Amino acid sequence: VTETTLRSQTREVSIGPDRPFAVIGERINPTGREKLRAELLDRDFSRVSRDARDQVAAGALILDINVGVGSGDEAQLMAEAVEAVQSEVSAPLCIDSASADAIEAGLSACRGKALVNSVTGERARLDQLLPIVAHHGAAVIGIANDETGISNDPEVRYRVAKKIVDRAAAFGIPPEDVLIDPLIMPAGVVPGAGRVAVEIVRRIENELGCNTVGGVSNVSMGLPGRPQLNATMLALLLGAGTRCVIANPLDDLLRWTVLAADVLTGADEDCRVWLRRHRDAARHPTTVPRP
Amino acid sequence: VTETTLRSQTREVSIGPDRPFAVIGERINPTGREKLRAELLDRDFSRVSRDARDQVAAGALILDINVGVGSGDEAQLMAEAVEAVQSEVSAPLCIDSASADAIEAGLSACRGKALVNSVTGERARLDQLLPIVAHHGAAVIGIANDETGISNDPEVRYRVAKKIVDRAAAFGIPPEDVLIDPLIMPAGVVPGAGRVAVEIVRRIENELGCNTVGGVSNVSMGLPGRPQLNATMLALLLGAGTRCVIANPLDDLLRWTVLAADVLTGADEDCRVWLRRHRDAARHPTTVPRP
Repeated sequence: VTETTLRSQTREVSIGPDRPFAVIGERINPTGREKLRAELLDRDFSRVSRDARDQVAAGALILDINVGVGSGDEAQLMAEAVEAVQSEVSAPLCIDSASADAIEAGLSACRGKALVNSVTGERARLDQLLPIVAHHGAAVIGIANDETGISNDPEVRYRVAKKIVDRAAAFGIPPEDVLIDPLIMPAGVVPGAGRVAVEIVRRIENELGCNTVGGVSNVSMGLPGRPQLNATMLALLLGAGTRCVIANPLDDLLRWTVLAADVLTGADEDCRVWLRRHRDAARHPTTVPRP
Repeated sequence: VTETTLRSQTREVSIGPDRPFAVIGERINPTGREKLRAELLDRDFSRVSRDARDQVAAGALILDINVGVGSGDEAQLMAEAVEAVQSEVSAPLCIDSASADAIEAGLSACRGKALVNSVTGERARLDQLLPIVAHHGAAVIGIANDETGISNDPEVRYRVAKKIVDRAAAFGIPPEDVLIDPLIMPAGVVPGAGRVAVEIVRRIENELGCNTVGGVSNVSMGLPGRPQLNATMLALLLGAGTRCVIANPLDDLLRWTVLAADVLTGADEDCRVWLRRHRDAARHPTTVPRP
């Protein structure tokens, strides 16, 4: 597995086996967040800026930006949101939209090398978005489903992933700039959804040599104890080789799991971050959550 | 990976990809437990019986029995401890000793098919213990180190594991009855110890087709936040393919992590156990710990 490198104007983040586990903060997204949605419709980016700050403070290395409010000019909104976030934090960005125009606008506003969320294996979508990704020298998340639907067969998903990587190469995007999303389904609906995801990740890591990126929150939809399920899903993916997830870094259990994973893999040198966070937690028990 | 099947007189437990994650309860061990040690020296097995009951109630599928008190007749003590545990619970047992006599005595007292903890790759140890394991039709844990020490190179550890499996076969013990322990070192002492373990597990699962069994508590030695590190290590191993760990099932976070893992892998059919435990936790908030 090679490294995927993203950049803001001042900061570089690499995703790979010898790097700290990378969390892409998922909070800047109006889905299910009525206040954020209303503010975005008003071109008020104060909550976006705060979400950006909080997520970076909580350890997110990359920030996802989704401004799909369902009306108005999404491309313009995306460009403004990107500016707002860039003026607040130095994390590289992940431009998240179903609209090619919004992705184009977001990438144009980005200073550095961003990630695009996402293409699927559908041929029309690939041929629409990959030229935009290539033009901006960005990296892209490829979701392992296509016209035929979302298969539970790791073999079928693997073939879709391979199709995305091959098509990206045809547009001049190297495999290290494609991150495959195994598309983790809700375990309460699709039995063994986590296991299917783990099997896909292992095959992709072993055979395609691409990085993978899992959206973990999906897996717990409709079930109680979501933080525990999400944190366990994250560690499962990591054991399978994933070095990057899309998640909510403001979730305490998830955050401590990421820190623990960095200790276990050696990415947290001399356990320095782990020991410091535990000292902080002991000193400020009311503000710093304990694991 | 094939299935490893253990048995008590009345119960069968299989370890494998399509089975619930198996925790071998590690509590019956006098190391660091002065009261238990004193009681064992007095032939008082009341705490052993209680530990057996509590661990099974907490979800342990197999119980490790170690009575190494450093004096007296360990073989006799092992036989009596096995009897005490068998009269209390129906879980299959794991006979844990450095003494061949104690292992022989423990296996003789066991009704069913037990696990032996453990052989290393040292030739003398293999040739001493494997005939005993074979004679009793037991399964055995092989620790991936030998005369040359404990390597941090997954390749070296893999070769030791293969040597153990090959030697076991020479004594008539099939590969499915050998579980390889990747020997997880403390991450505070050996940087990246968890990652090395994960790499060994992946190679063994892919190439040897054996089951693996990780002792997770070791990884957090000397560090704060041990439950979080242990639970994360467990999920990492599971993501790499391990279906069995030696751990303390009375640790809340670890127990919830195992339950979460069973939801994610589909071993918990229709999430029944997960939903029931959450209902119980909501009903009895003082006695049932929340995740």
